[in-house]
Amino acid sequence: MRAVVRRNKQLHVEERPEPEPGQGQVLARTLSCGICGSDLHALHGLEEMQAVGRPGVVIPEVPGIMFGHEWCGEILDHGPGTDKRLKAGQRVVGIGFVETPQGLQGVGFSPIVPGGFSEQMVLTQDLLLPVPNGLSDQQAAMTEPFAVGERAVAKSSADRDTINMVIGCGPVGLAVIAALKVRGLGPIVAADFSPARRAIAEKMGADVVVDPAKESPHAQWSELGAAGLQPKSLKTLFERPGKRAIAFECVGMPGVLQSLIASVPIGTQIVVAGVCVQTDKIEPLICINKEIEFKFVVAYDLEEFTASLHNIADGHIDVMPIITGEVGLNGVAAAFEELGNPERQCKIVVNPTMA
Amino acid sequence: MRAVVRRNKQLHVEERPEPEPGQGQVLARTLSCGICGSDLHALHGLEEMQAVGRPGVVIPEVPGIMFGHEWCGEILDHGPGTDKRLKAGQRVVGIGFVETPQGLQGVGFSPIVPGGFSEQMVLTQDLLLPVPNGLSDQQAAMTEPFAVGERAVAKSSADRDTINMVIGCGPVGLAVIAALKVRGLGPIVAADFSPARRAIAEKMGADVVVDPAKESPHAQWSELGAAGLQPKSLKTLFERPGKRAIAFECVGMPGVLQSLIASVPIGTQIVVAGVCVQTDKIEPLICINKEIEFKFVVAYDLEEFTASLHNIADGHIDVMPIITGEVGLNGVAAAFEELGNPERQCKIVVNPTMA
Repeated sequence: MRAVVRRNKQLHVEERPEPEPGQGQVLARTLSCGICGSDLHALHGLEEMQAVGRPGVVIPEVPGIMFGHEWCGEILDHGPGTDKRLKAGQRVVGIGFVETPQGLQGVGFSPIVPGGFSEQMVLTQDLLLPVPNGLSDQQAAMTEPFAVGERAVAKSSADRDTINMVIGCGPVGLAVIAALKVRGLGPIVAADFSPARRAIAEKMGADVVVDPAKESPHAQWSELGAAGLQPKSLKTLFERPGKRAIAFECVGMPGVLQSLIASVPIGTQIVVAGVCVQTDKIEPLICINKEIEFKFVVAYDLEEFTASLHNIADGHIDVMPIITGEVGLNGVAAAFEELGNPERQCKIVVNPTMA
Repeated sequence: MRAVVRRNKQLHVEERPEPEPGQGQVLARTLSCGICGSDLHALHGLEEMQAVGRPGVVIPEVPGIMFGHEWCGEILDHGPGTDKRLKAGQRVVGIGFVETPQGLQGVGFSPIVPGGFSEQMVLTQDLLLPVPNGLSDQQAAMTEPFAVGERAVAKSSADRDTINMVIGCGPVGLAVIAALKVRGLGPIVAADFSPARRAIAEKMGADVVVDPAKESPHAQWSELGAAGLQPKSLKTLFERPGKRAIAFECVGMPGVLQSLIASVPIGTQIVVAGVCVQTDKIEPLICINKEIEFKFVVAYDLEEFTASLHNIADGHIDVMPIITGEVGLNGVAAAFEELGNPERQCKIVVNPTMA
């Protein structure tokens, strides 16, 4: 079968042996798989990411990682000891971890098991969900990135009494906006330098969109009545009338965290969902004086993944505005380049069945 | 009256006019006032601290700050419009903010109103609590630093199912240990390079004390059954059997935060109570992969301050082990030097009534 493989920081389509499903695993044909920002990070900086350390999941020190973790597949066959709860022909999405003799592998982050930019994958049946009829392969593949937003919001303190600001409207930020909107929470302020991304943010449910090149998104805190902005007086020393500020950091570049620290109101919760792979600098004294709370979040659990699938299947979240392109395996390397331009692309899905 | 004043990064005893209590304020004679680590920071680095920015409280840009915010005083007189709920002769502790024509001032952080290293202070009556008989002036003065520990623990998620590690056993760390102990929460692991500080930590209620020069305190996580340490397998992917890890950062030096980030289990809550006035560096990728939560905390509210006073007055917290010296106003400058040696000193209280 054909698979996109990373070698010397470049992507190549290679012929690989068909994977064999192990105990409790299924063999699946890949129907659609989104390209994620962390794939872009990992193409150039995987070694640095490994050096910083990813606890738990083993990334073997061998070349040839096969990317692709936002997949929708179709079951072809079952490994030994599988109860066949999900039949051959069933379309599935799910959480991509498989046990191997070399340790637990993340599908899309492994040189041993194929990722979603491959014609076939092995998957763990117990971590799979059937895709309801009516959902396209592309829509189903968006379950994964939207589950990231689902977890970020679930782990946050966002409720009816908070003002929610989303910094960065890439797929992660857009998924956060969708997860807030599906809960009926607002106001949602979204900030991005790209007009195209701001337009998608509005489609996903942002109430206010801001171009940071023209005005600071932080002007919105007072505009919308955030607590913790009033100059201190004896009267307001211990009371903070107004709504609590919550900022979702969905950019993942050095310096963004400190720009938030410097600008948010006292008592703000900063949920960090953007993956910054470089060392970053902060001013702890400001964090202390503002009593800032940081929640770093990653991925999702099976409950959040299921909620994401239902939100899409039931029509509560329309994922189509974020999908801006589709390529076959031969187009993956160019698509990675193309995704550098937020005006042209937001999410490109890979269809290994395309020529 | 005499007051200790900061000029050119040095402390001098100077003659100053007696302060006059304004609306709702009282005039008090200072009986005892502890020297705080933030006083030590501020002696040399106040300008840098101001440059980073302390939101809310105005620190006027004039020389001559008068330190001392851990005070116990005796009411001498009342300003206009005070209801005299607290009579002359009453000993008081409380929260040191006073309104002035130049804006809200922090007692102990102002060049306009005297701090606790002065013979007299003006205080806001509504922010004062009477000191119960039986408490010494020194013990009462410890209400403030122990209120800092009270808030740090109150804002944390520490409960019967957490393992609580305190990094740094200066007065802040010791107050955190006391606040945990008074709630009956354990195990409490305390780490400090100084044998003298570790001995006080044990007196305050630490269950395990660790010398980081000999062994990593983080070995205790697995020792005590913390969650988030197990190598990931499919079985433990979404479940983390064990107790949640909580680390209280009470050192406040650059690098300590990142050493915690690198060493704590997945899902740890890091409560930052140590005041680091320099820029610090962190690895966000590790924070994300471990889903670390940070709570930066500062000071206390009136409820926490009251709880601290009651804990001391009712004998639940014995503050005497942390007090290692007493000086008059002429001894303050030398005491600041002396506090650099954790083997000799922990908390020195200033008694302006001493010769």
